[in-house]
Amino acid sequence: MKLLYPTSLVLDAKSLEGFSVSLHPYDVKTPIPDEHADAEILVTWTNTAANLSDAAKRLTKLRWIQSLAAGPNDVLSAGFDTAKILVTTGSGLHDHTVAEHALALLLNAARRFYEMRDWQLQSKWPQHLGGPQPDRPKDRFTTLRDANVLIWGYGNIAKTLTPHLRGLGATVRGVARTAGVRDGVEVYGDDKLAELLPRTDALVMILPGSDSTRHVLNADRLKQLPSHAWVVNVGRGTSIDEDALVAALQNGQIGGAALDVFEKEPLPESSTLWKAPNCIISPHAAGGRPQGAEELIASNLRRFLAGQDLRNIV
Amino acid sequence: MKLLYPTSLVLDAKSLEGFSVSLHPYDVKTPIPDEHADAEILVTWTNTAANLSDAAKRLTKLRWIQSLAAGPNDVLSAGFDTAKILVTTGSGLHDHTVAEHALALLLNAARRFYEMRDWQLQSKWPQHLGGPQPDRPKDRFTTLRDANVLIWGYGNIAKTLTPHLRGLGATVRGVARTAGVRDGVEVYGDDKLAELLPRTDALVMILPGSDSTRHVLNADRLKQLPSHAWVVNVGRGTSIDEDALVAALQNGQIGGAALDVFEKEPLPESSTLWKAPNCIISPHAAGGRPQGAEELIASNLRRFLAGQDLRNIV
Repeated sequence: MKLLYPTSLVLDAKSLEGFSVSLHPYDVKTPIPDEHADAEILVTWTNTAANLSDAAKRLTKLRWIQSLAAGPNDVLSAGFDTAKILVTTGSGLHDHTVAEHALALLLNAARRFYEMRDWQLQSKWPQHLGGPQPDRPKDRFTTLRDANVLIWGYGNIAKTLTPHLRGLGATVRGVARTAGVRDGVEVYGDDKLAELLPRTDALVMILPGSDSTRHVLNADRLKQLPSHAWVVNVGRGTSIDEDALVAALQNGQIGGAALDVFEKEPLPESSTLWKAPNCIISPHAAGGRPQGAEELIASNLRRFLAGQDLRNIV
Repeated sequence: MKLLYPTSLVLDAKSLEGFSVSLHPYDVKTPIPDEHADAEILVTWTNTAANLSDAAKRLTKLRWIQSLAAGPNDVLSAGFDTAKILVTTGSGLHDHTVAEHALALLLNAARRFYEMRDWQLQSKWPQHLGGPQPDRPKDRFTTLRDANVLIWGYGNIAKTLTPHLRGLGATVRGVARTAGVRDGVEVYGDDKLAELLPRTDALVMILPGSDSTRHVLNADRLKQLPSHAWVVNVGRGTSIDEDALVAALQNGQIGGAALDVFEKEPLPESSTLWKAPNCIISPHAAGGRPQGAEELIASNLRRFLAGQDLRNIV
């Protein structure tokens, strides 16, 4: 049996040895060589669309694709026969990096580094941002201490993020499809948003992209947030109605927005988000660095060879 | 006995009731009224120099000054007779806020928000800062995971900061006057800097201002850091030779610097730090919001009334 692994990231292939499987590196930007057209397992990471659609036609013995992306839209839209081919995702490989980025965006917002930068570029000292300050003013989000953070899309990334927020003194609540208490965090269904949003200092969106999450943060829900509340999005851009968000920022209806994902990426130069007040634009930089890929591949390889259910099946 | 407390911050005076001491609020920006010239205890926070020098002359019965600042240079230089008057500091009241700011500066550096902002102001998407990226490239400081953070000035703020850094996956070491293991952190004397600096990804300076700490981070020590290493300073500006730092930034000798304190504050418009590459300027914004002041005042008040040693004596 033959497994092809990508050279688009550094993988410790040695750690995958010992299975009755031969391991072969391949380039994700060119067609897979004829000698490997008989592969049964394909690991993908940042493959070009051309590479994948070509593989969908020529790798006729393929039985399993392990993507290292959290959402393998590229694989699913490439034309593979998913009736015959298992697809598993890289869910979990990005939890730490995305959580770190979300924390960094929250602190950038609270500590107003984006505004400090604007002053720095003019060689001017922003006295109003430093020196003695009121402690936790009612109309500002200035620290995570005693802040109410609501995480909408309470999954594995949220679970990784929560201890950091609590360590800094925040109270964390979650919203997810299934309500309940997870790791000591109260998680509510989205029918409770109207009660939760008005007492939120920072709303962190970590929702997947799908029809059911499209524009869930819309004008009506933005109105339910306090005027000092920040919105952070490290999930998918489609979950926010960007026009409504720009309006809320321009009207001072919310405190600000720190966004890593957008409805269209790259964000078009014409977007009004670029210049919206108190808006932080990060270029889909939260994840993009899978960690622990070897462990996931090895674990799924054992299951695959034993005929068991794989982890992270689409 | 009379205690004067400042109205320059919100203090819960009720929580100080029950002592055989009368409590009186006062304005820190005007002379203390004649009726309170007999006060024996003065709590200070952001008093004007004029208020303090006037108080030094007129409050002849003063026996104890409780400053809420970590370093009460204002009180010490106001002309109070410190042979008769005890001065205690607000050390500890700023640990959380300064630690949060230091963490925020480290993440701003690692996630390059300052550079993202420059692109945002041009409505341009910085592709090189987002999307799939190498995981922990050798020549960059891109995450706290597996990063070596060295805290120079390992005191209470460092102890508050360390769990956050470890939680994100960093290895933390300290430098202080007294070497040893504190809360599981290896703390070295400054004679070990030549060994420690070359394996540092981020150097966090939390040194007090004094003759012995002046320009301790100089050209020679900057040379010992790897070319990707960041310097963060939330202690005192005088501990860094700013000319040497600008040269190191301009030559790409270090990765960057995130500074909250400066030799002269406000940082003069003429300073070359403003435009130095990979330099983040924060306007002394880390602390400035004392927390738990009531608890410290009450605790010292008990000791004072009982004739015991006070906490945080200068």
